[in-house]
Amino acid sequence: MVIAEVTVIPLGTGSPSLSEFVAGAIRALEDSGIRYTLTPMGTVLEGSLEEVLEAVRMLHRLPLNKGVQRVSTRVVIDERTDRAASAEGKIKSVEEKLKEKG
Amino acid sequence: MVIAEVTVIPLGTGSPSLSEFVAGAIRALEDSGIRYTLTPMGTVLEGSLEEVLEAVRMLHRLPLNKGVQRVSTRVVIDERTDRAASAEGKIKSVEEKLKEKG
Amino acid sequence: MVIAEVTVIPLGTGSPSLSEFVAGAIRALEDSGIRYTLTPMGTVLEGSLEEVLEAVRMLHRLPLNKGVQRVSTRVVIDERTDRAASAEGKIKSVEEKLKEKG
Amino acid sequence: MVIAEVTVIPLGTGSPSLSEFVAGAIRALEDSGIRYTLTPMGTVLEGSLEEVLEAVRMLHRLPLNKGVQRVSTRVVIDERTDRAASAEGKIKSVEEKLKEKG
Repeated sequence: MVIAEVTVIPLGTGSPSLSEFVAGAIRALEDSGIRYTLTPMGTVLEGSLEEVLEAVRMLHRLPLNKGVQRVSTRVVIDERTDRAASAEGKIKSVEEKLKEKG
Repeated sequence: MVIAEVTVIPLGTGSPSLSEFVAGAIRALEDSGIRYTLTPMGTVLEGSLEEVLEAVRMLHRLPLNKGVQRVSTRVVIDERTDRAASAEGKIKSVEEKLKEKG
Repeated sequence: MVIAEVTVIPLGTGSPSLSEFVAGAIRALEDSGIRYTLTPMGTVLEGSLEEVLEAVRMLHRLPLNKGVQRVSTRVVIDERTDRAASAEGKIKSVEEKLKEKG
Repeated sequence: MVIAEVTVIPLGTGSPSLSEFVAGAIRALEDSGIRYTLTPMGTVLEGSLEEVLEAVRMLHRLPLNKGVQRVSTRVVIDERTDRAASAEGKIKSVEEKLKEKG
């Protein structure tokens, strides 16, 4: 399982607002069944590497399919093999470290 | 005011775990007074462009100051001038769009 | 055709040097046949969206297959539909703009 | 000295072309005196951490100062303390590794 963050930026739309596009992405992620969390600067995905890359492909294409002429998509993929990892677990792990040292 | 996401990656530490470093970053952000939110793939900062870049500088240097030999820091900065923006407001804006179209 | 930049960061290796991993990535890209250019901060890929994502999947897995316990991979994908684009063409386009205005 | 890559994306401009903005950035970097290299997906900067962050601040503000309503800027900063590093040196180091193993 990998944890990834993806942000899709439509260019040349004539409007500085992106929330309509992000809402469309969330609807598509709901349909896809992949585990996701919306954050202020992107969407966190959790799944196999193949599932995550397929979701990235789909999300990147959404604005282009709606007529947007250019899209810039950034992705960060985090994978570790020494133990199971999850988006929630990463934050809990930091919170535990913060408690330890008070 | 800008919204940014910063992730600091220490290299060559000999351990795949980063939570100790992230906890150190959170403590430093608490001391700095800048508004922040921990997310699974980074830390969201809110403040003036200058405040955010100063926090990035400080966070990037933390592992180096502790003896880490190499650090890779990624930052994304989002700034809009047409209206006030906040990390919380960005997510609310998407949620409203999702409700509208049901 | 899309233009992408990918950077694969192995974590917990005990050494701050990454050049051995980057060399391995270049050899794998040579074998794959995809068009690529090495830059100081990553590798630029050119191909269909599917070819690029398959190359990203392969590059991300390389260090894990060699026993690295954690990998952080960042990718940026740039695609436009209004005209053909290439890595070389993007730079030429800027150089032309610079000449125009002297 | 740090090596960084910065990409400034103006949003809501009504045009998918960015080359005019990149040309403006290059002119400003020439005036600033910082060492830079244009790559297909961004601009590589070399200097002290403070010089690089000041260049990022300036480049991020350029489109906003010209009336663009929203800007998304991504930055990656690479710093190592075990030996001197440069953008050119990073690529040479990989090329040497490739020759060694033939």
